Amino acid sequence: MKPIKVAIIGFGTVGSGVAKLLLEERERLARQVGCPLELARVVDVDLERPRNVRLPPGLLTDQLSTVLEDPEIQIAVELIGGLEPARTIVLRLLEAGKDVVTANKALLAEHGTELFEAARKYGRSIAFEASVAGGIPIIAAIAESLAANQIQSIYGILNGTTNFILTQMAEQGSMYADALRTAQQLGYAEADPSLDVNGTDAAQKLAILAHLAFGVHVRWQEIPRTGIDTVQAADMKYAAELGYTIKLLAVAELVGGGLELHVSPTLVSRHNPLAHVRGAFNAIRVVGDAVGPVFFHGQGAGQMPTASAVTADIISTALGRTAITFRTLRLWSPDRPSVVPLRDPAAISSRYYLRLNVEDRPGVLAEIAGILGAHQVSIASVIQHETEEPGDHPMVPLVIMTHSAPAGKLAESLAKIERLSCVEPGVVCMRVLS
Amino acid sequence: MKPIKVAIIGFGTVGSGVAKLLLEERERLARQVGCPLELARVVDVDLERPRNVRLPPGLLTDQLSTVLEDPEIQIAVELIGGLEPARTIVLRLLEAGKDVVTANKALLAEHGTELFEAARKYGRSIAFEASVAGGIPIIAAIAESLAANQIQSIYGILNGTTNFILTQMAEQGSMYADALRTAQQLGYAEADPSLDVNGTDAAQKLAILAHLAFGVHVRWQEIPRTGIDTVQAADMKYAAELGYTIKLLAVAELVGGGLELHVSPTLVSRHNPLAHVRGAFNAIRVVGDAVGPVFFHGQGAGQMPTASAVTADIISTALGRTAITFRTLRLWSPDRPSVVPLRDPAAISSRYYLRLNVEDRPGVLAEIAGILGAHQVSIASVIQHETEEPGDHPMVPLVIMTHSAPAGKLAESLAKIERLSCVEPGVVCMRVLS
Repeated sequence: MKPIKVAIIGFGTVGSGVAKLLLEERERLARQVGCPLELARVVDVDLERPRNVRLPPGLLTDQLSTVLEDPEIQIAVELIGGLEPARTIVLRLLEAGKDVVTANKALLAEHGTELFEAARKYGRSIAFEASVAGGIPIIAAIAESLAANQIQSIYGILNGTTNFILTQMAEQGSMYADALRTAQQLGYAEADPSLDVNGTDAAQKLAILAHLAFGVHVRWQEIPRTGIDTVQAADMKYAAELGYTIKLLAVAELVGGGLELHVSPTLVSRHNPLAHVRGAFNAIRVVGDAVGPVFFHGQGAGQMPTASAVTADIISTALGRTAITFRTLRLWSPDRPSVVPLRDPAAISSRYYLRLNVEDRPGVLAEIAGILGAHQVSIASVIQHETEEPGDHPMVPLVIMTHSAPAGKLAESLAKIERLSCVEPGVVCMRVLS
Repeated sequence: MKPIKVAIIGFGTVGSGVAKLLLEERERLARQVGCPLELARVVDVDLERPRNVRLPPGLLTDQLSTVLEDPEIQIAVELIGGLEPARTIVLRLLEAGKDVVTANKALLAEHGTELFEAARKYGRSIAFEASVAGGIPIIAAIAESLAANQIQSIYGILNGTTNFILTQMAEQGSMYADALRTAQQLGYAEADPSLDVNGTDAAQKLAILAHLAFGVHVRWQEIPRTGIDTVQAADMKYAAELGYTIKLLAVAELVGGGLELHVSPTLVSRHNPLAHVRGAFNAIRVVGDAVGPVFFHGQGAGQMPTASAVTADIISTALGRTAITFRTLRLWSPDRPSVVPLRDPAAISSRYYLRLNVEDRPGVLAEIAGILGAHQVSIASVIQHETEEPGDHPMVPLVIMTHSAPAGKLAESLAKIERLSCVEPGVVCMRVLS
């Protein structure tokens, strides 16, 4: 039977993994597609760097035109990453009549509307299972398997790098900087880890999931986000003492007809399965109005888990399933209405963990509690250990867990508390999830 | 736009749930399909029983012919359950040109080949997401999202009734009979619970997953299975003492080029996420050679979770995705080769938990250990508490955890041990999973 020809653009870690599957598992994939998938071309600017897969001679090229001008290549896989030249290349591939598969969450979060409109204009499709949570089939789950549901909430650990760092801190008692260094040594974090640790990566993935599940057109930059670079060993210790662990959570939740979106380090109760997601794994808890809660857990990154998701998209594109889903869902289309409005971040309620360094003298707790109370922020519990240091009135840590309170009210009270002379600047504040 | 007409055959709990979604969520479903889904007919022998959904007048009928003879009805949903008349009805629906959606695992496990051949003959499709694990999209995951992988193992809690009973026993210290009664009172177990508690239901679901993931044509009756009706409160207690909990696991695993299949109550380590699946929930851990482990957790039964899966199948059938998958995978086809042979159950190795009542006198442990050793069954740990009862040589419980040993060797040694005069008949033996 006539093979379906595939090109890979971007021969890095994931590109090599996809090439490996296409070359080494031909028979298996042919069974899944009903005809062979032929890797016809691999494009990369670097023709020399060694990869862990051996390509047949003549396949690797630095000329994108060999793909654009070959009408037999039906599917092009963009694995370059980043915004440019990925954006321009995807537009040219679509214009040349190729269906596109991509793992590029930054590209979709930033240029989704432009790319999906181009795909519609040229009658092509874009598949992007690998762009969120690597090997976990969360895109297919929300777009197809849970299609009968109004999704009510999505709570995700969507960034493996930060989850690895937080796990190191929780389990080894490491400081943030040491845990980051370990992550870099083991290849879980890049030399410049800022897009992971500052929450950008998770916010981009959340923007994609929120569009898919709720139809909202949200720029990822608008999603309130806090990174993990401010999480301290002391907070890990107090969290553990209180029965929690700290995770970087990406949250999309319908509340009172509006959508809450945020990415932030959160104290997660040990009774919640998200607390037990360790190392570089990802996990997502989705609640649908019919299905109830569904929990997914798997490897969110890495060569072969990501290649598994990319190759599933190649198979579905080759079979024509992707074209149907693409045509029907009209994602990132200007005429696809937002089903729900975004909620004002200040109105989003949560329980909070606060850690303050305060003077060890009578009346301090009363002053702080008074300010919180005046803003209707109610205290659930307090930890203040006896100081072990000698001397008069040293600074001591004070940990407060609040009942549920709107973010805006909490921020107002914290601004006042930080102005108290008995409180050191730099109050730590994190959400709490039961 | 012209609606796609759907009929529901079997207006019980799940049928009412699907009707509810089709009637009350028209707009939402129309968005997912690109045109309205119209519930055109509901067929049931019982026209009187009250259900928790109000049908428009004239929709409910006891005449299947109204569906068979209406060429506008494209999709028929079989929710009768059981073998007959479900089998005959599905065959007639296919012959009449309807695509079929079903939640009936018993029907597929028993008559899959006949039904799927009939669907191919008449150019129709059968979708069955709801037949395994209710709201968890495990069929789509294995058939589509993990299609690039050779699945290596599936470990599942596939029966909510037994998991509810085992959870009651583990958390409340209930006896089996009391936990079963609670399950019946709460609607989690039927008046005759035998198909659930004896492992039949889980074995039928496992047969479906094993066919999907490994291509094996296995009759569910051939799958070695043990029910939970022999699990005693004492075993729950010892399991907890050892750091385990008892779950009814359905297992399909590639070992040395052969496929192991079995359903049995298993001591699952508390470090394994399957140990924390509570109540009527289901969970499945799938390992693929590319993706690694992926874990799914959700409601395995119940009206709306099952209706969510059925309705997703209706959507995919209406869109034409199901036809593509059905045509390509050629499930239950005589010409779809079994990729792997089944392993001899006697050769399947596992760690084991043994509980024996033995005479409390010197030499007993040595005798038992000697027999195990002679069959190359190695002991990992032993619990024998001091007896609290007065008197000479009373019977005392002896608990042994073995290292990994083949089922056949273990059975041989147990047969000999049970013949010892110092051992009461009825040795308890369960697999152990780390």
